[in-house]
Amino acid sequence: SEIWASRSACLSSPTGHGRQFNIYSTLAPCHFIEMTWKQLSPAAERLRYILGEDDDMPTPTLFTEMDTLQHDGDEMEWKESARWVKFEEKVEEGGERWSKPHVSTLTLHSLFELRTCIQTGSVLLDLEGYSLPQIVDDIVDRQVADGLIGPELREKVSFVLLRKHRHQHKKPIHLSLADMGKSNNSPTSESSGLHHSTEDLRMKNKFMKKIPRDAEASNVLIGEVDFLDKPFVAFVRLAQATTLGGLTEVPVPTRFLFVLLGPHGKGKSYNEIGRAIATLMVDDLFSDVAYKARDRDDLIAGIDEFLDEVIVLPPGEWDPKIRIEPPKKVPSADMRKSVLNLNELGQVNGTGTAGGPGGGEDEEMPIPHELGEELQFTGRFCGGLWLDIKRKVPWILSDFSQGFHIQSISAVLFIYLGCITNAITFGGLLGDATDNYQGVMESFLGTALAGTVFCLLGGQPLIILSSTGPILIFEKLLYEFCKSNTIDYMELRLWIGLHSCLQCLILVATDASYIIKYITRFTEEGFSSLISFIFISDAIKKMVGSFKYYPINRVFKPDYVTTYRCECIAPDQAAAMAFNVSVPLADDNMTDLYNITGLDWSQLSKKECVKYGGALLGNACKYVPDLALISFILFFGTYSMTVSLKKFKTSRYFPTKCRSLVGDFSIIISILVFCGIDYLLGLDTPKLLHKYVCVFAVPALLVTILIFMDQQISAVIVNRKENKLKKGCGYHLDLFWVGILMAVCSFLGLPWYVAATVISIAHIDSLKMESESSAPGEQPQFLGVREQRLTGILVFVLTGVSIFLAPVLQYIPMPVLYGVFLYMGVASLAGIQFWERIKLYLMPAKHQPDFSFLRHVPLRRVHLFTLVQIICLAVLWTLKSTVAAIIFPVMILGLMVVRKMMDLMFSQHDLAWLDDILPEKDKKKEKDGKKKKDHKRTKAAEPESDEEPKSPLPPPVKIPMDTIDLPSAPDPSVTPPTQPPV
Amino acid sequence: SEIWASRSACLSSPTGHGRQFNIYSTLAPCHFIEMTWKQLSPAAERLRYILGEDDDMPTPTLFTEMDTLQHDGDEMEWKESARWVKFEEKVEEGGERWSKPHVSTLTLHSLFELRTCIQTGSVLLDLEGYSLPQIVDDIVDRQVADGLIGPELREKVSFVLLRKHRHQHKKPIHLSLADMGKSNNSPTSESSGLHHSTEDLRMKNKFMKKIPRDAEASNVLIGEVDFLDKPFVAFVRLAQATTLGGLTEVPVPTRFLFVLLGPHGKGKSYNEIGRAIATLMVDDLFSDVAYKARDRDDLIAGIDEFLDEVIVLPPGEWDPKIRIEPPKKVPSADMRKSVLNLNELGQVNGTGTAGGPGGGEDEEMPIPHELGEELQFTGRFCGGLWLDIKRKVPWILSDFSQGFHIQSISAVLFIYLGCITNAITFGGLLGDATDNYQGVMESFLGTALAGTVFCLLGGQPLIILSSTGPILIFEKLLYEFCKSNTIDYMELRLWIGLHSCLQCLILVATDASYIIKYITRFTEEGFSSLISFIFISDAIKKMVGSFKYYPINRVFKPDYVTTYRCECIAPDQAAAMAFNVSVPLADDNMTDLYNITGLDWSQLSKKECVKYGGALLGNACKYVPDLALISFILFFGTYSMTVSLKKFKTSRYFPTKCRSLVGDFSIIISILVFCGIDYLLGLDTPKLLHKYVCVFAVPALLVTILIFMDQQISAVIVNRKENKLKKGCGYHLDLFWVGILMAVCSFLGLPWYVAATVISIAHIDSLKMESESSAPGEQPQFLGVREQRLTGILVFVLTGVSIFLAPVLQYIPMPVLYGVFLYMGVASLAGIQFWERIKLYLMPAKHQPDFSFLRHVPLRRVHLFTLVQIICLAVLWTLKSTVAAIIFPVMILGLMVVRKMMDLMFSQHDLAWLDDILPEKDKKKEKDGKKKKDHKRTKAAEPESDEEPKSPLPPPVKIPMDTIDLPSAPDPSVTPPTQPPV
Repeated sequence: SEIWASRSACLSSPTGHGRQFNIYSTLAPCHFIEMTWKQLSPAAERLRYILGEDDDMPTPTLFTEMDTLQHDGDEMEWKESARWVKFEEKVEEGGERWSKPHVSTLTLHSLFELRTCIQTGSVLLDLEGYSLPQIVDDIVDRQVADGLIGPELREKVSFVLLRKHRHQHKKPIHLSLADMGKSNNSPTSESSGLHHSTEDLRMKNKFMKKIPRDAEASNVLIGEVDFLDKPFVAFVRLAQATTLGGLTEVPVPTRFLFVLLGPHGKGKSYNEIGRAIATLMVDDLFSDVAYKARDRDDLIAGIDEFLDEVIVLPPGEWDPKIRIEPPKKVPSADMRKSVLNLNELGQVNGTGTAGGPGGGEDEEMPIPHELGEELQFTGRFCGGLWLDIKRKVPWILSDFSQGFHIQSISAVLFIYLGCITNAITFGGLLGDATDNYQGVMESFLGTALAGTVFCLLGGQPLIILSSTGPILIFEKLLYEFCKSNTIDYMELRLWIGLHSCLQCLILVATDASYIIKYITRFTEEGFSSLISFIFISDAIKKMVGSFKYYPINRVFKPDYVTTYRCECIAPDQAAAMAFNVSVPLADDNMTDLYNITGLDWSQLSKKECVKYGGALLGNACKYVPDLALISFILFFGTYSMTVSLKKFKTSRYFPTKCRSLVGDFSIIISILVFCGIDYLLGLDTPKLLHKYVCVFAVPALLVTILIFMDQQISAVIVNRKENKLKKGCGYHLDLFWVGILMAVCSFLGLPWYVAATVISIAHIDSLKMESESSAPGEQPQFLGVREQRLTGILVFVLTGVSIFLAPVLQYIPMPVLYGVFLYMGVASLAGIQFWERIKLYLMPAKHQPDFSFLRHVPLRRVHLFTLVQIICLAVLWTLKSTVAAIIFPVMILGLMVVRKMMDLMFSQHDLAWLDDILPEKDKKKEKDGKKKKDHKRTKAAEPESDEEPKSPLPPPVKIPMDTIDLPSAPDPSVTPPTQPPV
Repeated sequence: SEIWASRSACLSSPTGHGRQFNIYSTLAPCHFIEMTWKQLSPAAERLRYILGEDDDMPTPTLFTEMDTLQHDGDEMEWKESARWVKFEEKVEEGGERWSKPHVSTLTLHSLFELRTCIQTGSVLLDLEGYSLPQIVDDIVDRQVADGLIGPELREKVSFVLLRKHRHQHKKPIHLSLADMGKSNNSPTSESSGLHHSTEDLRMKNKFMKKIPRDAEASNVLIGEVDFLDKPFVAFVRLAQATTLGGLTEVPVPTRFLFVLLGPHGKGKSYNEIGRAIATLMVDDLFSDVAYKARDRDDLIAGIDEFLDEVIVLPPGEWDPKIRIEPPKKVPSADMRKSVLNLNELGQVNGTGTAGGPGGGEDEEMPIPHELGEELQFTGRFCGGLWLDIKRKVPWILSDFSQGFHIQSISAVLFIYLGCITNAITFGGLLGDATDNYQGVMESFLGTALAGTVFCLLGGQPLIILSSTGPILIFEKLLYEFCKSNTIDYMELRLWIGLHSCLQCLILVATDASYIIKYITRFTEEGFSSLISFIFISDAIKKMVGSFKYYPINRVFKPDYVTTYRCECIAPDQAAAMAFNVSVPLADDNMTDLYNITGLDWSQLSKKECVKYGGALLGNACKYVPDLALISFILFFGTYSMTVSLKKFKTSRYFPTKCRSLVGDFSIIISILVFCGIDYLLGLDTPKLLHKYVCVFAVPALLVTILIFMDQQISAVIVNRKENKLKKGCGYHLDLFWVGILMAVCSFLGLPWYVAATVISIAHIDSLKMESESSAPGEQPQFLGVREQRLTGILVFVLTGVSIFLAPVLQYIPMPVLYGVFLYMGVASLAGIQFWERIKLYLMPAKHQPDFSFLRHVPLRRVHLFTLVQIICLAVLWTLKSTVAAIIFPVMILGLMVVRKMMDLMFSQHDLAWLDDILPEKDKKKEKDGKKKKDHKRTKAAEPESDEEPKSPLPPPVKIPMDTIDLPSAPDPSVTPPTQPPV
């Protein structure tokens, strides 16, 4: 093999088994070459051997506690000074608290000293130990036997090692009181001390949860004593993990024991060695080695492997005092293990230490945007639907049985509130947009009906149907279209609904859902941005409108209040008489009210005055005080408060749960607060209108496009691999039901519903199952989702019942809803990569965030791409503002065409990073890739692989703007610095 | 010595000079002990020898560039792949841009490989080189001579090494066009390409500024070639730094050259070695070694020293892919050097590797809060003043000559705008508080007068006099006191001013300024918080007041506008007649206007109506529309906009200069914007009033206390060591002039002025001299301040001239100023540690920021301390709200008493971290310290020193609230996470 070839090229042969320090020795010039073939090192071979033995039995997780010997006069005791579950937590001596978990920064020096310790000290493997005194005896015996200490020290060492252990947060109360007395004479201290202790117990229990149930402990004991003249080192592995009294802070049995006692004066150094072994013990690979080591040399090999993988920071570029926060993600030890195993197969070659920091600079390729086999084109009539049903039927029972779990209750409540907020907001806006042809009550009814049916029968019951932004915009445009062309809105809507249903069914029958693959980030973002801009501009328009509707008297001088009035002046007599006979009496009550000729004109309201033909005279008539300004305050206040509450989620105040509750319900809280303010002020602001009458009532293709895109993109996001769904999805079945519900809703005069991304993801999030324990500083592991139909059904039944909320709704002022509207537009822009790229125009290059696409695509190409998107949007916007408004769903197809043309302007490599590759390009791309690779192979020492990402990033779709803007799957390429991680 | 004693305790003696790898060898058990005595290692001794030789000549800074060999078919070229000034910047291949500067994360592996390279390769020191071909010849000759390569490879190696070099941003235009053509057919690309190139040139010039003028370059060349079967390594130091054609990106002469060529297949590994040597070359200590090395072994010793100091991150706890941002501060290499030198003196003992990460966990003791010899008590009459004058006289000439610098212009403009903003804001508020006894015009005049005199004659001309919060509050309280006790305000003020002046002079004469030492953070914060709260509560009160002043008609229905009116009804005839004779005619014009009996009552304004005894009748009379709400919008808008603009300073958008301009002028921008909005709306909002008449006009102790504290605390902050002032300060002289100006201003009826902290610091900041070049990612070095009187004088002359701004001022609505008022209160709270501690009450322990006092003081003690402060403040607040308000300066003395009593409640250790130690405690503290140390010495292996800070932190004083809230000295212990670094 190549390996042996290069080896034989060496001038002198390696020293063989004696080469324990192979990597650091300086024996021969050929050594350098050998060096880069890490897999040849004896340490690695040793490890491969011992780790390969029985890989099927995973070793327990280790909890490591480090205690240091404290002298208090003659008294000695072991005091906990740090602990490791995965990251280091240090006892802040003065602060009497645990530090935040942080990455252990070690000195290389201490690691080498540790290595020497293990080499020279006593190593007792598989010691039969049942109590600490017995273990200590064994250790001391061994030391004496090996001649490491004189027998006269036996007693002294044992005495020291058996001193009592004091743990942080396990201090007897009387001690803490005494402690306090030293510096504190105030009477408040006792109570605070007591309070503190109970608090500690609670914290301790909390901490136990962070340690896996099967965990074992390793204890590190470090101390300076005066009777030794050289260090006393022992590494012990017990045959059975044993609870050794108060040795460990938590009731976890001890498996390993590391003891280092030494003469006075080098405490810092010993301490560093202790931190080094403790860090090693919690290293995934080394702990495996420690469990399986057969002798001292195995341990040494483990240290060497660790040394070979450590990351080194230069002393002049980093301050060791800085505690490094745990990273979001750490590389798994499996990689390191697999390197050891793969060596055998000779598969790792050439790259040598590529796993190290340097090689690690390579960008991890984005996870493929897989759509799963459910979206394969079957070619048969209803093939996809049939497969969906077949896939779903076996789960019917468990779909209900799995719903019975305590977590479901909170999920139902949470999602219910989200649905209600959505129904009110979208219902209110829809009513506003359609002159109350549809309104809040329809919204409630429709949500309940559609949601229940879908959750009961749909393919993916975790999806929540709701009104969404695009549908709202479409209804608005449709209504305006009808009004300007004097077409009956509800009738047209009914026909559209029916046709659209039919088209959906055709799409289902023909497996058309598979074409979703052709919608790339470019199209999605164009669509989404357009909707966002419409939201924002509409909200602002409405607000400006209220200044026109309630004009402010800008020349008003408080002092001249006496001159402001508005009087109703009777028309001249003749006109009044004419009016008496000619004006049609629309109002039945009118005749009851007055005899026209006998009217007291000055008592008439403005409307009445106009109705009876009176003239309004005066400088106050055309002004309305206060309402415009209070509307503005309500509008802007709602918006700002929602934004602030959302941000509150990531603040430091209050426990996480409390914060996320506030953050999740930011919209409903803001609405409530500003409704309250409005109510207290009592001003006659425009209010939400609703009616109780359900009105029973051929651009259907437009709706179909909209429905299809909105539904399927949301479904793709819900069904993403990251969510670890086990019951499979049913795109065709979903679309089938959406189509049917479309028809039903159209008949009933209810709004149309499709899958709402954000609220669906919130549903999934609230049903997430996570691993119970995760080390402090580590992210908990996500296991899967409780997939069932019960929570969804309950949510919608509750929504249906909420129709009785109606009387409360009249207190909601419209400006508040406009504020929410504005928020939704702005918030949904914030999650779009397109928006991030627009912002890049304003940032000097050095301040730009480290987006991965910026690492791989030249800035001018990025800007050009963004510019194309901006132009597309400008065109869309212009079209939208003309008569062509109603056909805007078709424009989305236009976007897809533009995207296709962009293949000519941009390389596939750039597009892969900025967008997705179009599926037809698969073959071409492969060719490109090959060419590139050929090209590349001739290059030497390429510092960073510039291979194009195998498949694009999952798109950060935020198209269907839900009111509840809840956590969505984070997109690795889009990490706007200012956006709080929702 | 102790060192030798422990050495002789070893069982076997060390191997002596042959021990090149001492720290990694495993020869003897005693080695472990030896290990911890780093100063004994031969590497260290070697370094001490070569570095000690001529320490007076500093070596140039090194710029390192790494080029890798690229193959493009048959063509080969060297392409720049990374560069180091201090931190690493990498070429993002795809992105065609430089990465952000980051800390180089290396593999330990690559460092050892590098070590082997240096050991086995050719090392050519002090090579006489004038051109690259000649140098390459010499290298190849040496390699052939040493038998490292065969002579047949001579040509090939030379050929490769002489290939042309391509640098990032130095690409010929035709190349970039061709490059672009590959992926781009759009017509826009050419222009963007050209644009890009010019941009590059600009960026290159910018980059040159980052490299010190005397810098030299080290070039690292890394390549894979097919004709070698083992690596070709050479390390070259030229006798003279020489510019070698296009070898280096920037025109910096090359001193070092590292070449590594090797067989194909291990490019990644070579690359890592290249990064390792590049990182070493920019290490301060290693670069010294490289310059002074006499042979190969010196270099190896340098690497060993580096290895000994590196910081190690465990592979399981850190992801090497993460690029680590440069830290704010890196430990200086002097520490490492001094360790090497001190060894000789045997002073570093016991702690061994304490400098490493573990030992480094120790909190750095806060910088002593030194007040300088200027505040020593001389004991002589006017002793301090005399010394101040003596200290200042020699600088008189340079005080003016040093002012002639381009930087002065921007400083003058900047500070002038700050002064104007201050004068307007405080003047407006003062006018509001004193019913315009004092107003904006007085403020302008006074600022100009006092400032000019002070800058001309004061001890510290960098101090800017201005109205400050405490003075404003005092004037307000004084005015209210006068009004309620019917005392003539201006007269009282004059007497207070004169007495206060006298008292100031007495304080000056008696060197009383030294007592400023007794004012600790506790007192300062109490004072400052009280003022802040008064600001906030007053601003809100004013705002609420405007709702009362302009009541909103809450039952107004737009439709019933016809029923709202307010009419002036003539009093009954008899009353009118009575009025005609009895009412004193205050208004001279009145008789001209009307004959009372012939009045058209309906035409009268509200005021006239009331004046002539008419009755106002109607439901509109008591309401004023819109004004309250628009006032609220202006108020809140100004506040929010100021906050946002301040935050904008730390955003990523726009170049830094532009942002800091916006941030610095946030207040004036907000005022202008909202004045503009107000003007456009045209509503009759309450406006700033001012008058042109200067009114020429024995709680003086109160003012004196206030003046004294405000002035001297500001002066202490200005004179802090961090500002590196060279001309000394003059506390007594300063106070002298403040006292004199006090009397003058009182006579002239002008406001009183003292030093304004924030604006003075802004003054210093704008006159800062910084080192011209600082490595990318590194903070520029601060050299000193242009100390002179010219800028200050110019600022105040300009302010005086600005009195002609008067006509513009009437457009400023009061709510806008209230908004600024609110901002000032809130902003000044944000910088106070007390406020940070209050916020801790709301944070769960694990979310609390890593304040250093939290590391050293138990949380319950911190909370208790905060509670005491809260209670004190509550008491102060209550007193302030009663009749005792006027004596509030005395309360500050009360705070000092409370602080004194707290010595009984808290240990000196806790107080040192939370507050400052009182000076009288010096001796007691020493005793305490000793006791602690004795106690400590008996402890072994103390993991972290808990010595109390030698001296407390410099207080983050923000007492005198200036309008311009500019950068103040950062306090290491208070780093609120949300507060943008101003």
